[in-house]
Amino acid sequence: MLIKIEHIGIVVKDLEERIRKYTSLLGLKIKEIEEVKVENVVNRVAFLPIGETNIELVQTTGDTGLAADFLKERGEGIHHIAFEVEDLDKTFQELRSKGVEFVWDQIIRGSRGSMVAVIKPEEFNGVYIELVQRD
Amino acid sequence: MLIKIEHIGIVVKDLEERIRKYTSLLGLKIKEIEEVKVENVVNRVAFLPIGETNIELVQTTGDTGLAADFLKERGEGIHHIAFEVEDLDKTFQELRSKGVEFVWDQIIRGSRGSMVAVIKPEEFNGVYIELVQRD
Repeated sequence: MLIKIEHIGIVVKDLEERIRKYTSLLGLKIKEIEEVKVENVVNRVAFLPIGETNIELVQTTGDTGLAADFLKERGEGIHHIAFEVEDLDKTFQELRSKGVEFVWDQIIRGSRGSMVAVIKPEEFNGVYIELVQRD
Repeated sequence: MLIKIEHIGIVVKDLEERIRKYTSLLGLKIKEIEEVKVENVVNRVAFLPIGETNIELVQTTGDTGLAADFLKERGEGIHHIAFEVEDLDKTFQELRSKGVEFVWDQIIRGSRGSMVAVIKPEEFNGVYIELVQRD
């Protein structure tokens, strides 16, 4: 069902300052920076590849939404694990049929043209799990 | 410097109950369960491989230590990202010469015979970064 970890999402307050830290100290490089709009909130996201996966740094520009809520409740930190799946429609339906609840009742468009669904953190004791299908 | 993400560490209260969730819902499988002693605290850790990396579930049996402190402050959740490095001694010295502070002033023994060093979370805005060298 799961292919690999596609990225690990880290919520930050200042994207440029964090990028400098991850590149200068850990030697990571930026692959892309993108603005992603989810429910009218724009997030600025940077992807830094490492092996087969990516570190995703997320700076939100809004006062609402998953990243803003996380910042308010817990401060900056590791926010989610995104697993790549082969068939998101199928996985989404299978998990819903097992009673798993999702943040949104439908698959939405994520970064880099991907489609995503996010499991409510209550299912995995506070861990946000995102399911991603890439083109 | 960094080869890949070796694992993502998640602090949990009940290891067996969490393992059931990750295996039954996400289809992950356990590779190994181990007890790891760090500074007189025993942690029970389970490794669930996914692609080139692993999900590490950590249940501490102590009231002190990194996992216990995290539980008290933030509750269950994603605790750290562990990057595999080729030469831990060299990376450890390089980062220290750049002023990076570590939780312990030396490299210690981690799970599965590995050697590890953990960067203080203040360096990466609340994110614990572990550097791992496998045999």
